[in-house]
Amino acid sequence: MVKDLNEIKKRVCEANKTLPSHGLVKFTWGNVSEVCYELGCIVIKPSGVDYDKLRPEDMVVTDLDGNIIEGDLNPSSDLPTHVALYKAWPEIGGIVHTHSTEAVGWAQAGRDIPIYGTTHADCFFGPIPCARSLTEEEVNTAYEKETGTVILEEFTNRKLDPLAVPGIVVRNHGPFTWGKTPEQAVYNSAVLEEVAKMSRLTEQINPRVQPVPKHVMDKHYYRKHGANAYYGQKS
Amino acid sequence: MVKDLNEIKKRVCEANKTLPSHGLVKFTWGNVSEVCYELGCIVIKPSGVDYDKLRPEDMVVTDLDGNIIEGDLNPSSDLPTHVALYKAWPEIGGIVHTHSTEAVGWAQAGRDIPIYGTTHADCFFGPIPCARSLTEEEVNTAYEKETGTVILEEFTNRKLDPLAVPGIVVRNHGPFTWGKTPEQAVYNSAVLEEVAKMSRLTEQINPRVQPVPKHVMDKHYYRKHGANAYYGQKS
Amino acid sequence: MVKDLNEIKKRVCEANKTLPSHGLVKFTWGNVSEVCYELGCIVIKPSGVDYDKLRPEDMVVTDLDGNIIEGDLNPSSDLPTHVALYKAWPEIGGIVHTHSTEAVGWAQAGRDIPIYGTTHADCFFGPIPCARSLTEEEVNTAYEKETGTVILEEFTNRKLDPLAVPGIVVRNHGPFTWGKTPEQAVYNSAVLEEVAKMSRLTEQINPRVQPVPKHVMDKHYYRKHGANAYYGQKS
Amino acid sequence: MVKDLNEIKKRVCEANKTLPSHGLVKFTWGNVSEVCYELGCIVIKPSGVDYDKLRPEDMVVTDLDGNIIEGDLNPSSDLPTHVALYKAWPEIGGIVHTHSTEAVGWAQAGRDIPIYGTTHADCFFGPIPCARSLTEEEVNTAYEKETGTVILEEFTNRKLDPLAVPGIVVRNHGPFTWGKTPEQAVYNSAVLEEVAKMSRLTEQINPRVQPVPKHVMDKHYYRKHGANAYYGQKS
Repeated sequence: MVKDLNEIKKRVCEANKTLPSHGLVKFTWGNVSEVCYELGCIVIKPSGVDYDKLRPEDMVVTDLDGNIIEGDLNPSSDLPTHVALYKAWPEIGGIVHTHSTEAVGWAQAGRDIPIYGTTHADCFFGPIPCARSLTEEEVNTAYEKETGTVILEEFTNRKLDPLAVPGIVVRNHGPFTWGKTPEQAVYNSAVLEEVAKMSRLTEQINPRVQPVPKHVMDKHYYRKHGANAYYGQKS
Repeated sequence: MVKDLNEIKKRVCEANKTLPSHGLVKFTWGNVSEVCYELGCIVIKPSGVDYDKLRPEDMVVTDLDGNIIEGDLNPSSDLPTHVALYKAWPEIGGIVHTHSTEAVGWAQAGRDIPIYGTTHADCFFGPIPCARSLTEEEVNTAYEKETGTVILEEFTNRKLDPLAVPGIVVRNHGPFTWGKTPEQAVYNSAVLEEVAKMSRLTEQINPRVQPVPKHVMDKHYYRKHGANAYYGQKS
Repeated sequence: MVKDLNEIKKRVCEANKTLPSHGLVKFTWGNVSEVCYELGCIVIKPSGVDYDKLRPEDMVVTDLDGNIIEGDLNPSSDLPTHVALYKAWPEIGGIVHTHSTEAVGWAQAGRDIPIYGTTHADCFFGPIPCARSLTEEEVNTAYEKETGTVILEEFTNRKLDPLAVPGIVVRNHGPFTWGKTPEQAVYNSAVLEEVAKMSRLTEQINPRVQPVPKHVMDKHYYRKHGANAYYGQKS
Repeated sequence: MVKDLNEIKKRVCEANKTLPSHGLVKFTWGNVSEVCYELGCIVIKPSGVDYDKLRPEDMVVTDLDGNIIEGDLNPSSDLPTHVALYKAWPEIGGIVHTHSTEAVGWAQAGRDIPIYGTTHADCFFGPIPCARSLTEEEVNTAYEKETGTVILEEFTNRKLDPLAVPGIVVRNHGPFTWGKTPEQAVYNSAVLEEVAKMSRLTEQINPRVQPVPKHVMDKHYYRKHGANAYYGQKS
């Protein structure tokens, strides 16, 4: 089945519009993209356009290197970060970046989001990593591309699977999430924001709290993921 | 009067739909059930279905052991926890499980929610207990059933009456509440979430705060419950 | 001009309905009353009735001692507190009681709400006092009436003017506010809740913060109150 | 092109109405103005009028010294602060004052809002200053005018450019922001409120956090401002 570019544009447009309804963005502070290997393209939100004015035909289409193929508007300035992640991780199909409040709290604090319970384990198999801040050289050469490099470096160093830990917070900046589809990437953004808040409250209530036991984390993650998952309905 | 199964399905469906309107759930993260001893059944939400798409005919009907009698969809994966509580406590008629944010904060922190005032005492006669986390063996044999066992163990050890303290938080997981009806169980979930927040704020404002005096707790609880209650209207 | 009882019922009903829209109550956790000396009556919300079902004809009318004159429903269980305050303070015309979250935080913490800025000073001329918890004897004899006595004791001991400091939090319980009219009493409840939150955030950001200088407090209070007020429009 | 006074009134009215929709004000606690040098006037919200009742014809028009030219209503009591800022900074075209909760938290705490990340740097080139509280003499002579003087003193002492740092919090009081237009001033108020919250959460999560590195701050600010900006669409 050949993929339909108009369907992708429609889907990316819709996924972008869900960001404000999930409370993840103010103004134009977030973007969603989808990659399609059959068509050899990435479809992404135009930069600085309000979500409620966004139409499918406003989406910007680029090749897999981020060169614009179609669209009159500038793509999101974060496009090079999306390109870097898609190139490294062919298993993912959608990426989301936001400045959601609680996630930014951890990004600015420069800390991994600890895994304290099952809400977190249902979606992220372990702590949500905090990537280091970019160096002056990285910022001044290709800032948005290097943001992608820093994320990939963190996953390589920690030997993490991007589908098992589908998100990160970049120090001094904010969260990036991904998934097999743009819809899953948005879902993961919403979960990241919620568990970021839960972890903050948890430490406030008990400053000496320890992470969730590994067997509980394993159980909850595999209840929802993999061959033996039994949550939800068979699709 | 013979109970009408369709009425129960309708009531359970409606009770599930109130979870997002009370701000207690995101996505599909919560479930409500009702037990009926006359008909010998439990009616519960199907697993992973959105609240706004839920129809009475989607509810799953099981016998009192949790074996499916009616319904094409999988029941909530937490069904065995509901079954365990109904078996132990014939006085309750409805159960609710959510991942509401403030309650999860206490669950993850591994602390009982202290009773600091009358809002709490109006509904819960004492601190809201935090049950221990499950052992590796419990998790790996029958996780959801053992979650029920751990809750019952906590109530037995502390000699608590489930109608006087109609809820608990399970360590590293989240809140479970119950009541004579599903509506009461939902009400108790909403109160638990609110007093979880109030207790957190109270400790932030005064880290050395002490629990409410027993005579105030008694007064407020019995103003609303039991033979001498005088709050509200005679029904 | 003779006061019209139906107008008062309508006003009290409307004032009660604004409590949830200001975010001050959940379920039925709050009540508003008005006193009328010409008609010799108090009009108050019935106990335990939902705000969205409240109609003017549901309001309960009592004499100035709280004896029911008119109405088929039970009055708010807090009626004796309202009666006690009206008897002591003929200058007030309306009273509000809620369990609003941030105010309850201070009540449960057992602390006065400090005055840290102009938002507070625009409405409350000084800290918002926290009244002591009731003794066992007070609770067991006439709980709701004694709640009023404890509030009055606090104002007498501190030599406070109830129109200059139109509210209090009662320890382990929650806020009471009042004003010349029910509308003003509701406004004061909303301001109390907001400054309760602001004071909490202020102490979180700077644990060694000092109260607002007296000359700033005086200026802001008298900008809005008294003969030389110049905020707003001439009515 | 001669400016149209009716257009300005309409714009100022609309900008005022966006304050509650951005969650920046309760009741009547905020005001927006615009200055026009061609027409030699300032257009500002009337004092104490509800936002939902505000009509363009209700706006108050003054000369550049704040003397009323047109309008039956009293102008916002903060008018003299607006006048002082417009006189000192001809590069700004609109001013906003609110009592937004998180910003007031920092104002009351008497602290600059530290710059911990890119959300802040996208809009404010450095920490958001906290101006000192007014002296007793300043309060008693010309309070609102002196509030402007204190803001200007802070910017002069710190050698700050009002378009690079388009806002401040005044100690014990609250935030003032500005911009080339009223719309930009409102946007800056919303960003100030959001970064005030983010900075509070950041310090809660990591009490020893350090400010964002200067090269990241520079990058984000200049991505959106100045000749080399590349965020958004070419207008």
